[in-house]
Amino acid sequence: MSAPSDVRTALSAPPMGWNSYDYYNTEVNEAQVLANAAYMAEHLKEYGWEYVVIDIQWYAVGAGSRSREFQYIPFGEVVMDEYSRLLPDPARFPSSAGGQGFRPLADKIHAMGLKFGIHIMRGIPRAAAHEHRRILHTDLTADMLADPANICAWNPDMYGLRANLPEAQLYYDSLFSLYAEWGVDFVKCDDICREDAPSAHREIELIHHAIKACGRPIVLSLSPGPAKISEAAFYAQNANMWRITDDFWDSWPLLKDMFRRCELWQGLSAPGAYPDCDMLPLGVIGGCFGDRQERNSALTPAEQRTMMSLWCIFGAPLMIGAELTKLDPFTLSLLTNRELLELDQKGRKARQLLRTEEEAVWIAQTDEKTYLALFNLCDEERAVHCWTGQAADLGFTPYSGGQIRELWTGAQTSFAAGGLACLIPAHDVRVFVY
Amino acid sequence: MSAPSDVRTALSAPPMGWNSYDYYNTEVNEAQVLANAAYMAEHLKEYGWEYVVIDIQWYAVGAGSRSREFQYIPFGEVVMDEYSRLLPDPARFPSSAGGQGFRPLADKIHAMGLKFGIHIMRGIPRAAAHEHRRILHTDLTADMLADPANICAWNPDMYGLRANLPEAQLYYDSLFSLYAEWGVDFVKCDDICREDAPSAHREIELIHHAIKACGRPIVLSLSPGPAKISEAAFYAQNANMWRITDDFWDSWPLLKDMFRRCELWQGLSAPGAYPDCDMLPLGVIGGCFGDRQERNSALTPAEQRTMMSLWCIFGAPLMIGAELTKLDPFTLSLLTNRELLELDQKGRKARQLLRTEEEAVWIAQTDEKTYLALFNLCDEERAVHCWTGQAADLGFTPYSGGQIRELWTGAQTSFAAGGLACLIPAHDVRVFVY
Amino acid sequence: MSAPSDVRTALSAPPMGWNSYDYYNTEVNEAQVLANAAYMAEHLKEYGWEYVVIDIQWYAVGAGSRSREFQYIPFGEVVMDEYSRLLPDPARFPSSAGGQGFRPLADKIHAMGLKFGIHIMRGIPRAAAHEHRRILHTDLTADMLADPANICAWNPDMYGLRANLPEAQLYYDSLFSLYAEWGVDFVKCDDICREDAPSAHREIELIHHAIKACGRPIVLSLSPGPAKISEAAFYAQNANMWRITDDFWDSWPLLKDMFRRCELWQGLSAPGAYPDCDMLPLGVIGGCFGDRQERNSALTPAEQRTMMSLWCIFGAPLMIGAELTKLDPFTLSLLTNRELLELDQKGRKARQLLRTEEEAVWIAQTDEKTYLALFNLCDEERAVHCWTGQAADLGFTPYSGGQIRELWTGAQTSFAAGGLACLIPAHDVRVFVY
Amino acid sequence: MSAPSDVRTALSAPPMGWNSYDYYNTEVNEAQVLANAAYMAEHLKEYGWEYVVIDIQWYAVGAGSRSREFQYIPFGEVVMDEYSRLLPDPARFPSSAGGQGFRPLADKIHAMGLKFGIHIMRGIPRAAAHEHRRILHTDLTADMLADPANICAWNPDMYGLRANLPEAQLYYDSLFSLYAEWGVDFVKCDDICREDAPSAHREIELIHHAIKACGRPIVLSLSPGPAKISEAAFYAQNANMWRITDDFWDSWPLLKDMFRRCELWQGLSAPGAYPDCDMLPLGVIGGCFGDRQERNSALTPAEQRTMMSLWCIFGAPLMIGAELTKLDPFTLSLLTNRELLELDQKGRKARQLLRTEEEAVWIAQTDEKTYLALFNLCDEERAVHCWTGQAADLGFTPYSGGQIRELWTGAQTSFAAGGLACLIPAHDVRVFVY
Repeated sequence: MSAPSDVRTALSAPPMGWNSYDYYNTEVNEAQVLANAAYMAEHLKEYGWEYVVIDIQWYAVGAGSRSREFQYIPFGEVVMDEYSRLLPDPARFPSSAGGQGFRPLADKIHAMGLKFGIHIMRGIPRAAAHEHRRILHTDLTADMLADPANICAWNPDMYGLRANLPEAQLYYDSLFSLYAEWGVDFVKCDDICREDAPSAHREIELIHHAIKACGRPIVLSLSPGPAKISEAAFYAQNANMWRITDDFWDSWPLLKDMFRRCELWQGLSAPGAYPDCDMLPLGVIGGCFGDRQERNSALTPAEQRTMMSLWCIFGAPLMIGAELTKLDPFTLSLLTNRELLELDQKGRKARQLLRTEEEAVWIAQTDEKTYLALFNLCDEERAVHCWTGQAADLGFTPYSGGQIRELWTGAQTSFAAGGLACLIPAHDVRVFVY
Repeated sequence: MSAPSDVRTALSAPPMGWNSYDYYNTEVNEAQVLANAAYMAEHLKEYGWEYVVIDIQWYAVGAGSRSREFQYIPFGEVVMDEYSRLLPDPARFPSSAGGQGFRPLADKIHAMGLKFGIHIMRGIPRAAAHEHRRILHTDLTADMLADPANICAWNPDMYGLRANLPEAQLYYDSLFSLYAEWGVDFVKCDDICREDAPSAHREIELIHHAIKACGRPIVLSLSPGPAKISEAAFYAQNANMWRITDDFWDSWPLLKDMFRRCELWQGLSAPGAYPDCDMLPLGVIGGCFGDRQERNSALTPAEQRTMMSLWCIFGAPLMIGAELTKLDPFTLSLLTNRELLELDQKGRKARQLLRTEEEAVWIAQTDEKTYLALFNLCDEERAVHCWTGQAADLGFTPYSGGQIRELWTGAQTSFAAGGLACLIPAHDVRVFVY
Repeated sequence: MSAPSDVRTALSAPPMGWNSYDYYNTEVNEAQVLANAAYMAEHLKEYGWEYVVIDIQWYAVGAGSRSREFQYIPFGEVVMDEYSRLLPDPARFPSSAGGQGFRPLADKIHAMGLKFGIHIMRGIPRAAAHEHRRILHTDLTADMLADPANICAWNPDMYGLRANLPEAQLYYDSLFSLYAEWGVDFVKCDDICREDAPSAHREIELIHHAIKACGRPIVLSLSPGPAKISEAAFYAQNANMWRITDDFWDSWPLLKDMFRRCELWQGLSAPGAYPDCDMLPLGVIGGCFGDRQERNSALTPAEQRTMMSLWCIFGAPLMIGAELTKLDPFTLSLLTNRELLELDQKGRKARQLLRTEEEAVWIAQTDEKTYLALFNLCDEERAVHCWTGQAADLGFTPYSGGQIRELWTGAQTSFAAGGLACLIPAHDVRVFVY
Repeated sequence: MSAPSDVRTALSAPPMGWNSYDYYNTEVNEAQVLANAAYMAEHLKEYGWEYVVIDIQWYAVGAGSRSREFQYIPFGEVVMDEYSRLLPDPARFPSSAGGQGFRPLADKIHAMGLKFGIHIMRGIPRAAAHEHRRILHTDLTADMLADPANICAWNPDMYGLRANLPEAQLYYDSLFSLYAEWGVDFVKCDDICREDAPSAHREIELIHHAIKACGRPIVLSLSPGPAKISEAAFYAQNANMWRITDDFWDSWPLLKDMFRRCELWQGLSAPGAYPDCDMLPLGVIGGCFGDRQERNSALTPAEQRTMMSLWCIFGAPLMIGAELTKLDPFTLSLLTNRELLELDQKGRKARQLLRTEEEAVWIAQTDEKTYLALFNLCDEERAVHCWTGQAADLGFTPYSGGQIRELWTGAQTSFAAGGLACLIPAHDVRVFVY
């Protein structure tokens, strides 16, 4: 009997949480993680937010200290155990001292009723290879497992593996075994699914098997994207989410471009397996990196509504980029809109009905409701139209007359014969629920 | 109010029919078409088969007469009207004489309770451009509308259009107006959706609009493929079917490769809009082309079952390539398997559960039944496995115990705890229905 | 005994002449050609200028009449003989009436002591293919020889040939036999050597053999370029000149870029075989094309000196683009600088000694003199340096002391120990002769 | 005054010598080098052979010890000084002990009247970067100079440099200063000029400047090739030789292919700057690598004559691949053919007159003689022809009648009117001298 493809054992809906990168870049520390977790537990958890994810370079000593020159210090010191496994830097994560790893921090976060996630880079530390460190449960040392010609184009920390050696599986098993001991619930694995890089197909399989073997239902998130559309089915068999875009930031052209990407990936979700539009760069972000000061998201309120509406009707994972302790009321309102979050979590059959340079229309439904989102992609106010027969053709419950409500404005309206037209401000959205 | 995207007005399920190409290449004539139609009306119509499609070069005088040198005679004589519109060659289609076009033939086919289809090439006849023929309802002549640098790589008959001129729409309107007068129900448009050719995006839109404007619900089929996966949504808005493969013939490597293509395109059907795996090269085919003799399909019975099962569970259009009057009992039995055809026509949510070099598993369901297909892609007998929890995860009705039947053998079996394992001969398939 | 590769029988030095394109585009007529020829005979011939070349579309009826829409009218009327050979349009070339072709015009030009050239497009007229015209000395008609999938990307007049048919040679033989009868001395063949187009290797060989067979030493010039550096040796075996650039016009960026191209092609000349930098767009040019008015060359006097110095030290063919009857004294002085023209015609071993973004240095020599050219490629005045030992290393006659003269200014100077430094205005050049 | 481009100060003719790679792969030791040098001094020096070159990984501890798995051991131990400069492994090069580097070995080789060369990889040792070793005369450590994303595709020893940092020049200066102290006469720099790799343009310039600065006229040889034809002029300004091929071995298809490469690069030599056809794999080679046994060159005697004739008429560097102490009389005769070696060393104006799939003809001349080489590239005996007028056209001294001698057979012949025809065995060559 073939074993189940168990990416679904870890997830039943798109994950919702917070990720440290958009504010802290490579530099977040334990106190900052806990402060964000505490905020989440108090203010957001009841709406479904639960993952607290530490992004890249938690193992790097002095990460960010040369940020005017480098995002990632080349050949910088990293903290490792004797088995070539990266450990949190105790200077930034004091509770990890004494070889405890992320266990104490994970415990605290679990105690808040939340889940704990970390970022990793595909491969094995370059330092481990050059130091010939051991690999757990093997006779090999890291220099024998690392592929010296397989590197990441933008981060200097790792070598890819000689992925066809049996020990490659044992190495990943040793990693996820450790992460399971720590209590990790979510792993974002980077440098592994970009369409213009050589395929890391085999490494994805190794990691997927390592998660199955570790005994803990760890969510697997692949980055950086844009992922390869031709591998859509493969991702869904082996991972819980995969980025369909390069890093997304607070810029209208990037947001408008996401409509193209969602069109391409529609219909390719599966239970527990979701195309990923990247973090939500709203609230206060950009707090670390070189001389940069933190900033308020450059997306206008209309654009933030558009972003939230698209991510939710598409059924994307939701990961907040903002520093949570600095959330303003408007941003908080976006993140606690129950009706919208319900669409993200329980929506099915999301379909784009129309996309042009000027407008887009999407539809999805939960067990109870149908959501119809009309987006104005123009720089001026515009009447966006939708023909309701189309939705019925696609198997959505036909509009049966009567009042329908707009989610953002609360306005009540009804469909005219055959359709709906709605005047929408520039870059804004209207989501009709019926 | 934006006009409906009406590709669905012409179709409610994947079209089923016969196409002249696999047997007759460029050379079919009226009597042969009628003989196949008569066979279909008598033997196949009750099973849902209804389209009778005349493939390429019905307008070409002497088509096939130099088949040892050329499939398509360069700069050969074509039959046209004064408005640069190709007409059937009366030598092969006598009823078209006197400017009646395909109307008399379509009438006869309609009288049998069937539907009538033709093939066209994108663009305008080269001969029309060089002769400066008129374009209906415009002041232009064909030389002003043809783009001399836009040609087909493999057929010499046409130029592409200067598609941004307003008259380009009027030209296609004039074609489909004529086809509507003739009573055409189905148009297979070629040289229009191949991934390694420049996009014919604009010409697809022109043709889609021409069909809307002509007042007859003509099915639009795009060829040759492989179509561009990045334009999946666009095809579904503008056409009823689009080829996901180059020409498919009776070869196991091509058939095995179709599993890769179906994986890629799964989930991208919509009502009235279907990815197309090309004609079914079974029965007696290859009757015309140079010195070649007609042949029996080179696919073994097992491979033919595999082909029929894949096309039907994927929900592909079904177009028979065989000369119908020469159908043998085995082939006929494949084409009249009611339970399998019902899967093709009424199946929903088709999903691949697994694909390796050795095996593939697909699932789909109709309102009444679930179909689970296990394919052995190996050259030896093999036990193929399936874990039934996976299907339930995807929202399929869970197996509730009891007997299930295998479609091809009639065998009764039941799932073991959690799954099913089945010994399958090389290149064969088992389809479980429950 | 293998036949000689006789590209050298037609030429002993880079050809010098006038080409109609830069001023007349597709529209030159007989009177205009004769006026330019008369000017050349009177004012330029004594300096070595001798070719008078009619560029593209002398066979096209109404060429230029729709120049606001098209440079080349698609599917326009062309003048042909019964053997698919293009003839001059008698409306523009009255002396060609009665089937005399270019013979009368060539006679007049020869009577002035000059040579006569024409432009052709690779291939066979599309009109001939569609009309099934005959091919001389064969049983084929043009439709059987034309390759319908082999076209030019920018001109609609021709099809490429099925170049492997024996009749393809006979067709080109028939063309060059006619050109020999007319008294053609120079053929510029277009659409035949561009690096981003499929190789027209075989057609170049056919044309080369046709020239050998025709009995007249016709110069063969290949266009449009940039030619393929990997076919350098092939060009030199089969043609007299080949363009190393796309069309060159009067723009400093294009001129600066020519230094890169000359660097690439240095050392690849052979007697009678020359890399070609395209026409000299100086004087009054641009007299035809749509609404455009004629203009003075946009190159400054300094840039024109730079252009002339580079073409001549590189040993490039020299083809004047200006309308000769409108030559101003400065331009005339450039075209009659005997010492510079001698460098072009008799120079040997041209080598670039140095090239950076800011400067370039070239050296060449004739039997009597050494020429050292220092180019300032900057937008400001600059001191350009040259180390003379380098030239001696390359086998040039070492500087033996004493005065050396600068060609453009007439200044006398001498080398300092080991080298020379010279202050040069922006975009200008100094050529030292010793 | 701009400094001279002094690649010529190190060389006046193509270098001739021996390289350890073809026999010893990565494993040569001091005794073996000295044995080959001693043979050269005794038997070959009088013919012009003088360079003794130690190829790749003289710094690698245990090089070759895992040759069944790896040619180059990943992350193996290397010998370095405190300034990140690789040193010879004292286990293989005992005289280098105590920090003396290659000085003692170079001294011995110089004492034999020979010259001494080494191989280096572009860049800085990975180990130095990971250990943060110092860089001489800078405040940087190797981690700050190494570019972690710039690696060699096939050798794991080095990182490329952040070549735009000023310290990158200082690093290369420190290397060549050390090599000058050692007495190195020749450096073969690898991973630096392959057409399908990113350009190492800047690193070539850095090395060229370092050689100028070191005060010793070190020959610079670039590898692995095929080099970029578009950078031909740049190579000639900055290096003494550059490989026009990937590694060349004893195989007829590779040898035949070299004719294509020589055609491409003809005319692009300069004094002291030579396109390089790679080592001569004749005699006994392949003595090290995994389980392989040494072998006699797989080239037949005819093919070896062809190889020697092509390299010499083309004017290529000559580097013997054979273990010299095992030279057989035939191979020795090839390496001591004074007349052929004179062609290599003193030949000028080498030109290919003809190349087809079946034959090639080259010509070159020294001050005294003209050499005309006819190659039979067929697998059967063939008459190869040559038209002598062609050579005269190219400026070669015309044949003035009388006897001419064939270099390999000693036969006397004379040209017939206009040319020469010669029956040549398969894969063989005839070189006529007059």
